[in-house]
Amino acid sequence: MSTAAPRTADQDRIWSVDEHLQDILATVRPLEPIELQLLDAQGCVLVEDVLAPGSLPPFDNSSMDGYAVRVVDVAGASEEFPAVLEVIGDVAAGQADLLHVGPGQAARIMTGAPLPPGAETVVPVEWTDGGLGEGPVSRMRAAGLYPGGAGGQVRVHRPAEARAHVRAKGSDVRAGECALEAGTVLGPSQIALLAAIGRGTVRVRPRPRVVVMSTGSELVQPGEQLGSGQIHDSNSFALTAAARDAGAIAYRVGAVVDDVDILRSTIEDQLVRADLMVTTGGVSVGAYDVVKEALSHVDDEDEPGSGIEFRKLAMQPGKPQGFGSIGADHIPLLALPGNPVSSYVSFELFVRPAIRTLMGLADVHRPTTRATLAADKALTSPAGRRQFLRGSHADGTVRPVGGSGSHLVAALAHADALIVVPEDVTSVEPGTEVEVVLLG
Amino acid sequence: MSTAAPRTADQDRIWSVDEHLQDILATVRPLEPIELQLLDAQGCVLVEDVLAPGSLPPFDNSSMDGYAVRVVDVAGASEEFPAVLEVIGDVAAGQADLLHVGPGQAARIMTGAPLPPGAETVVPVEWTDGGLGEGPVSRMRAAGLYPGGAGGQVRVHRPAEARAHVRAKGSDVRAGECALEAGTVLGPSQIALLAAIGRGTVRVRPRPRVVVMSTGSELVQPGEQLGSGQIHDSNSFALTAAARDAGAIAYRVGAVVDDVDILRSTIEDQLVRADLMVTTGGVSVGAYDVVKEALSHVDDEDEPGSGIEFRKLAMQPGKPQGFGSIGADHIPLLALPGNPVSSYVSFELFVRPAIRTLMGLADVHRPTTRATLAADKALTSPAGRRQFLRGSHADGTVRPVGGSGSHLVAALAHADALIVVPEDVTSVEPGTEVEVVLLG
Repeated sequence: MSTAAPRTADQDRIWSVDEHLQDILATVRPLEPIELQLLDAQGCVLVEDVLAPGSLPPFDNSSMDGYAVRVVDVAGASEEFPAVLEVIGDVAAGQADLLHVGPGQAARIMTGAPLPPGAETVVPVEWTDGGLGEGPVSRMRAAGLYPGGAGGQVRVHRPAEARAHVRAKGSDVRAGECALEAGTVLGPSQIALLAAIGRGTVRVRPRPRVVVMSTGSELVQPGEQLGSGQIHDSNSFALTAAARDAGAIAYRVGAVVDDVDILRSTIEDQLVRADLMVTTGGVSVGAYDVVKEALSHVDDEDEPGSGIEFRKLAMQPGKPQGFGSIGADHIPLLALPGNPVSSYVSFELFVRPAIRTLMGLADVHRPTTRATLAADKALTSPAGRRQFLRGSHADGTVRPVGGSGSHLVAALAHADALIVVPEDVTSVEPGTEVEVVLLG
Repeated sequence: MSTAAPRTADQDRIWSVDEHLQDILATVRPLEPIELQLLDAQGCVLVEDVLAPGSLPPFDNSSMDGYAVRVVDVAGASEEFPAVLEVIGDVAAGQADLLHVGPGQAARIMTGAPLPPGAETVVPVEWTDGGLGEGPVSRMRAAGLYPGGAGGQVRVHRPAEARAHVRAKGSDVRAGECALEAGTVLGPSQIALLAAIGRGTVRVRPRPRVVVMSTGSELVQPGEQLGSGQIHDSNSFALTAAARDAGAIAYRVGAVVDDVDILRSTIEDQLVRADLMVTTGGVSVGAYDVVKEALSHVDDEDEPGSGIEFRKLAMQPGKPQGFGSIGADHIPLLALPGNPVSSYVSFELFVRPAIRTLMGLADVHRPTTRATLAADKALTSPAGRRQFLRGSHADGTVRPVGGSGSHLVAALAHADALIVVPEDVTSVEPGTEVEVVLLG
């Protein structure tokens, strides 16, 4: 991190929300893929087409507990006239050495066990006397009762077609077939399939490591006593939680005092574990906006193109925003405003899509919907700014929660949606249809 | 874990899905609450009404960068006839010693800084010459330029009403007010509020620790070569991932061989880190169903009421199920069938609600909806069993993915919904409205 000439952005220009988001998404690149253990890859995006190395199931196997027999030996079997077959032993799941089932013979077989050579079909144990010389039964006796495997005779009371109750080799996935395509997000059932075809590791984009720090000499750690003029740090907690929610591995640095040198060295220290950095506070026009002071002069001479640009956005809350990259590795950094509601809304609009872009996800945005405004009076919104109000959404209607103040954390905590009032609208009457961003 | 008489459940009785679920939810109790650090409590349920110990914000403060002044001193100020005030210094956020603003005076004030005594309102810096003796400006000069604080004069070009741009003490949350109610799930914005009112720790029900083990001598770890008759273990991976998805801390034990003694001692070993145990396989009628053999005779003599009961359920897939509690601490245990699709569907129907009950969540079920069946031919379903088919849901329609075979993992991996065919329905024509469970 070295100091060079500040960026020459027009300081009076107002940028739209969409322009700013576009610039962020055009800059942030998906992380390089790595090979991860299956359970470490949960929630990650696959970057390879995964082909099945073998068939699934790998062999014909029984879908029932019962007897493996030849079709002709049970043809015409009935309750009155059962087929009586010689039991030559057991076939359990995982058994390597298989019996050969000859004419007039039956092998006791368990669900998932390989269909033994000679056998053509499986009769469920419920269609037999269980090999006990009794009437129809619904269960087997434990293998422990037959140390040498089952023997004696079994009476079969129903015929079975060829390959009945047999799961054919490759009927789930054929060898060489594409089991999962690149771009698939790995949830529990995708992990099931990868394990089933024998993949212990898989190539995915890893979860991004996001470092969150709040700035402000007024900030005190929750749980500690406030002095005069002090407030508790909430942003570093909220955004760490929000980054995790978005899929990141998040590190909370906590609050940094308003000192340009300390801020710079803290950021520099943290770069080693960051795929993305997020700061809050110190980005406005004030004399103590040290994030802006520290970072707007940052530019890596050896790495042209890096540096942080500070902008005014046509939005409320969240007007002042910083974005760029930092350090030799061009780690993206988003500098959000310090008011709790401003920083949270900015996170939703800009940081969350950046995190999901790093993950390589196709859809980086929160779902939106349209809903009817339920309110006692018209909402007002400043001309030329896109307003994001906290709302509560249910059954096609949305109701504002709290006011538009960017310090109202209680209202935010009771909201589950953002109501969007476009730039060219200054008043929204109750009953009007509005755009709504659904928060989780 | 000691051995006693087996449970005397009627072995031929068929239980409904709802009866089984009801029994599980009537047995599983929310975990005892503990005090956790804020970020460790993410996703957990609050068990206390959290009252604000003080006001939020804790003091009147400025919502803008500007000048703190008396109302009368800027009354009638205009571009042509600005009010000229003496700048007596800076008020930064977090500043403890405050200036007193007298008649004809102004204190340069930053966003979030306390309104100093004597001042009645704030004029934004944009309404002034910035204290530079120039025309209207939009930004301040950095504090570093005034080592002793700002001085000189400021010209104010607009009047301000009393308490304009002032956030009143307690306007977000009043001291003593209930900030969050017991039962609230802690997401990022609830964590923001707790931090803002100064709570460093909070009393919640912890995430349940779920131990997952698959059973079967045929199971081989993914990544290793299959021998004859062997398959790869997928259940322990899938259900560990699914348990995490449901909110648990999940431990994968992996595959245990079909040996009653080894199985018992493995379960006994794992009890120490389990709030819930899940096994797969070995619960059917076969001679090698060792989970059933090992656990249906388990009963703690000192703790009457514990023990595992094995049942046949009127469902497909997932007919054989075991449920009960085990060990001196009555740890709940669900014994699921071993087919990958059966175990996954059983997890969704029974284990996920159990995990969410342990967490103390009010809503433990997946969302369901109704959708129009899109299919080439009618779906068939066995009479008397509730069938759960894998489906793909979009825009009010649902399409079956793969067949009804409980070994079809590939279809499961490409599904995002379960199509529910009720017990009394044996055929569903395309175009019919069906119930659909949405798999998040």
